[in-house]
Amino acid sequence: MSDAALPSIEQVQALIGRAPFHQWLGLEVVRFSADEIEVKAKWREEWIVNPERRYTHGGVLAALVDLVADWALTARCGCAVPTIDMRVDYHRAAMPGDLVTKGKVVKFGSQFSVCEAQVFDHEGQLVASGRGTYFTGAMAPRSPA
Amino acid sequence: MSDAALPSIEQVQALIGRAPFHQWLGLEVVRFSADEIEVKAKWREEWIVNPERRYTHGGVLAALVDLVADWALTARCGCAVPTIDMRVDYHRAAMPGDLVTKGKVVKFGSQFSVCEAQVFDHEGQLVASGRGTYFTGAMAPRSPA
Amino acid sequence: MSDAALPSIEQVQALIGRAPFHQWLGLEVVRFSADEIEVKAKWREEWIVNPERRYTHGGVLAALVDLVADWALTARCGCAVPTIDMRVDYHRAAMPGDLVTKGKVVKFGSQFSVCEAQVFDHEGQLVASGRGTYFTGAMAPRSPA
Amino acid sequence: MSDAALPSIEQVQALIGRAPFHQWLGLEVVRFSADEIEVKAKWREEWIVNPERRYTHGGVLAALVDLVADWALTARCGCAVPTIDMRVDYHRAAMPGDLVTKGKVVKFGSQFSVCEAQVFDHEGQLVASGRGTYFTGAMAPRSPA
Repeated sequence: MSDAALPSIEQVQALIGRAPFHQWLGLEVVRFSADEIEVKAKWREEWIVNPERRYTHGGVLAALVDLVADWALTARCGCAVPTIDMRVDYHRAAMPGDLVTKGKVVKFGSQFSVCEAQVFDHEGQLVASGRGTYFTGAMAPRSPA
Repeated sequence: MSDAALPSIEQVQALIGRAPFHQWLGLEVVRFSADEIEVKAKWREEWIVNPERRYTHGGVLAALVDLVADWALTARCGCAVPTIDMRVDYHRAAMPGDLVTKGKVVKFGSQFSVCEAQVFDHEGQLVASGRGTYFTGAMAPRSPA
Repeated sequence: MSDAALPSIEQVQALIGRAPFHQWLGLEVVRFSADEIEVKAKWREEWIVNPERRYTHGGVLAALVDLVADWALTARCGCAVPTIDMRVDYHRAAMPGDLVTKGKVVKFGSQFSVCEAQVFDHEGQLVASGRGTYFTGAMAPRSPA
Repeated sequence: MSDAALPSIEQVQALIGRAPFHQWLGLEVVRFSADEIEVKAKWREEWIVNPERRYTHGGVLAALVDLVADWALTARCGCAVPTIDMRVDYHRAAMPGDLVTKGKVVKFGSQFSVCEAQVFDHEGQLVASGRGTYFTGAMAPRSPA
């Protein structure tokens, strides 16, 4: 895929920002290329699971893995596509602070595609990582790869 | 485990309700036993991923699978325990409406335990299901099973 | 689906037995219905991972989860279909002896389907369980369910 | 970890070769470092699932993902450790021929560790990839990392 075909960060941000859940997560597209994407999420009090230790709920991390892995397909599919399944490994507690999630395509296929994502805390430590399988069978892929 | 040892629904509700993220999800414990739990989540506008079709973001369903599977361990562990990893299968779009999630223990172990959960929409249709592996090694289990 | 439409155990056995890998696993269909299947695998020395403790390699259990979950689709699809992804939880060491694996359909879909399987040792103890997602999109399903 | 502490390829080969199942898979250690390992498996007729199309059974690929991800921990743990759970994505049919699997440590932890693996066919194409969670809690790790 030539870079010319890539949507701009502003266009991807506009697409992602349409979802109310993404607005709630305060998502901001930091970087974007043909097979990768980096998205920042803005910490909020409602993410907390343990009121004393104040770390972020694993469900928030799972949502970030799912959606950022999905949006790594944007350059190929033009938008996010349905998740078939996803899984996440938790590596350490995510203390209060914004999170940066990096997603990339592992294997693009004509029926389904596999992408992975890593979630980092504001100190750059890996807090969670995972993968999703996405349904790309209904797409007219922009890049037949 | 004798039923006498079980915390009451009110006690479990109080424990679950301590987490700000659980409050945001509007969680209400519906049913509770030694190995199973059923939790209702109150739909909110911020769950939406697609503003036209208005279905719920998969990240919300993933969070419900993770946490309800975890809380199925409450009778044995007295509280939720750390998730090691989790995965979820998406079965159909979850249209606007409250969600009911049923969790149960698949295998309780002295180091880690496996639990599963199913998410149903307000019409009773299965929208997602999945599993988590939980770290029960730091627990003094109430029931050594 | 009416039982009349179901292939016989002998027919399913003949289909499964065509694969050299299934022959190596010594698979025998024990029970079969519209949404479930039960398959016995005949223990062999080559399954061992630890020559002192002599328990079965997790890779053998993973193979059983994958294939028996898949063959739970036989009544609907007429044969096994491609696995998109699968995962397995290990619950206890599988000591030498035949293994019985039970598979069932969790959700049949027009594009992909989710099935689960449980592996039991010769004493009936659960040694592993898991799930696979299978591609049913290329099938002309026998039962549109 | 200093390279001096690393076992030699011959030592790792000797450890892996003790398992009858590994002998059956014809495993040969190709490369080995503190956090990564590369293992070749020798194709055999019994791997076949489809006697006409002759591709390799997904269960064999799953076994390779599980065990090679596990053996990526060898430098840290001195041997393979128990798999808690694993999952694999299938990317394309693996036609007859030896397979090369590369494993690496994603996150080493004092209780459990996550490793990943990729399986390539004899033309270097990615046929499957996946991850496992391994129990490193009983180890006296050689490198406290």
